[in-house]
Amino acid sequence: MYGAGDVRVIDVPDPTLQQPTDAVVRVVRACVCGSDLHPYHSMQADEAGTPMGHEFIGLVEEVGGDVGTLSVGDFVVAPFAWSCGRCEFCLAGLQTSCVIGGFWAGGGIGGGQAEAIRVPLADGTLVKVPGVDAGTDESRLAGLLTLSDVYGTGWHAAARGGVREGSTVTVIGDGAVGLLAVLSAKQLGAEQIVLMGRHRVRTALGREFGATDVVAGRGEEGIERVRDLTSGGSPIVLEAVGHLPAYEQAVGVARPGGVISRVGVPQYEEAPIGFGSLFGRNITLTGGPAPVRAYIERLLPAVLDGTVNPGKVFDRSVSLEDTPKGYAAMDERTALKVLVQP
Amino acid sequence: MYGAGDVRVIDVPDPTLQQPTDAVVRVVRACVCGSDLHPYHSMQADEAGTPMGHEFIGLVEEVGGDVGTLSVGDFVVAPFAWSCGRCEFCLAGLQTSCVIGGFWAGGGIGGGQAEAIRVPLADGTLVKVPGVDAGTDESRLAGLLTLSDVYGTGWHAAARGGVREGSTVTVIGDGAVGLLAVLSAKQLGAEQIVLMGRHRVRTALGREFGATDVVAGRGEEGIERVRDLTSGGSPIVLEAVGHLPAYEQAVGVARPGGVISRVGVPQYEEAPIGFGSLFGRNITLTGGPAPVRAYIERLLPAVLDGTVNPGKVFDRSVSLEDTPKGYAAMDERTALKVLVQP
Repeated sequence: MYGAGDVRVIDVPDPTLQQPTDAVVRVVRACVCGSDLHPYHSMQADEAGTPMGHEFIGLVEEVGGDVGTLSVGDFVVAPFAWSCGRCEFCLAGLQTSCVIGGFWAGGGIGGGQAEAIRVPLADGTLVKVPGVDAGTDESRLAGLLTLSDVYGTGWHAAARGGVREGSTVTVIGDGAVGLLAVLSAKQLGAEQIVLMGRHRVRTALGREFGATDVVAGRGEEGIERVRDLTSGGSPIVLEAVGHLPAYEQAVGVARPGGVISRVGVPQYEEAPIGFGSLFGRNITLTGGPAPVRAYIERLLPAVLDGTVNPGKVFDRSVSLEDTPKGYAAMDERTALKVLVQP
Repeated sequence: MYGAGDVRVIDVPDPTLQQPTDAVVRVVRACVCGSDLHPYHSMQADEAGTPMGHEFIGLVEEVGGDVGTLSVGDFVVAPFAWSCGRCEFCLAGLQTSCVIGGFWAGGGIGGGQAEAIRVPLADGTLVKVPGVDAGTDESRLAGLLTLSDVYGTGWHAAARGGVREGSTVTVIGDGAVGLLAVLSAKQLGAEQIVLMGRHRVRTALGREFGATDVVAGRGEEGIERVRDLTSGGSPIVLEAVGHLPAYEQAVGVARPGGVISRVGVPQYEEAPIGFGSLFGRNITLTGGPAPVRAYIERLLPAVLDGTVNPGKVFDRSVSLEDTPKGYAAMDERTALKVLVQP
């Protein structure tokens, strides 16, 4: 990406091993993330450009001398943060705070929207999936790709929100993460799941994933509707957008003593948290960048055996060359989530 | 109170029963709260005035026809919010969100800094303490009075923060609530308790209550010191002040994946909660007005048998007539917490 709206596909040198803990992975499928749209809207023009993409599945092509758990040819899922797997935070399941880890597409690490990529700390980062290869059927591959980010992120929202058997949950946002937060809440046993979104095709998929109610209204109108549906407010609110109005909506629909779990990357730093918003009603605010690495093994079996089909969030597929068209389609909201086939 | 710095003791008609669910209580001990200092600093002059005080213990003097659990002569502790005891929120232990409850000293309800007070919803609100009367020794009465607010509020901070056996906890603020948050954290099994405060007499009491470390520094200096002491940040932070710098300090000392539990009434509405403060490190923000009613029975036995002595937070005692002097002493920080003897 070279600036707002300016995505180019260019030739670069093939990635190579730089550390003995590295692997090189041939990308089988990648995709465009809702969070990629933030720089797509606002990035300052910069002729140096920045690599893009933090979600991919692929085949291990090369491994460094210190890599112990992976071999050439292994099929792997990459979480959207790379991590050592050994530090206090990795062991606690908070790999996004790994003391030596980091994020793709920055600091000398390439992006996943590419033919191949160097993976640092490969043992800690990658999850091997036996029995899958580049020829596995498309819906399964799409499902595996969601484990890179959106499914694990939706799961993080639900897990941090404390969803359990019988919960009443409101999900804000009908993007891929919001829809997979619905699926996650359903899997964790939620009884009532209200989905706030106005895009009919998406909310229909939300219903398929487990939403019991859909509220298209926004602002005060939407808040009133959710408060009616939940008899006075939702004990658990999952915020999967990241813009301030979505946060304000979350505060509005939350029940006294409830929890707001955020996974949409906040496009604001300051927001109301005083007596009139969170404090007075003892509302808990939680969430953050999902440590999806912590959830992959747990979510994998149902993806592999087809119990769940999170790959349904992909409604468009483009070649690597057409990745810019994928950005445009998501920006125009003509596509929910775009899969990239290198 | 008639405005900032303007507290007067006046004669008013005796309180009387107005609803069959009311009781009238003769106040045995009341006190001045740190939160009373907020209007003491900022209240607009108003010749109508407002009653003050939300912490008291006393003797039941009269009961309405629908009061079933209390009799004339009972010794009672009053939590700082009155509540029905029957609604969803009361049953869930969140009495500060009672659907028909409210707070003292407003909306036609008097304040506790008085000779007597009308108590609405007496059955739900008051906790009877057998074996105690106005002649019980002073330290025991002082301990019981802390159950009205500051002890239960410190406990709420620790409970919401998830303090348990072996926890590392940082407490921000050496006021009565901060000190009793230390005591509560200790009772809940915390192993390391860092108290941030600069008033030596108070932090000494904090050590007596269980603080293992005291940090007098503020801002970046204080944050660095706590991060050193806790090997990189505190997994649990209890914020017992309410001013924005205290919140910012809490964010600074929190460990990735940690919890900030606020009980100091926020003197701000907006504050940083985005990627650079809470979100990026998956920090949870919780707390609110303490439902102290939920904690009184649990905390009472150790107060009665002298296992703990939370009444030590009172370091000054005044007659009701001298209540204005009590405000002044707390404002000047020559007194930690002032007990009022009607």
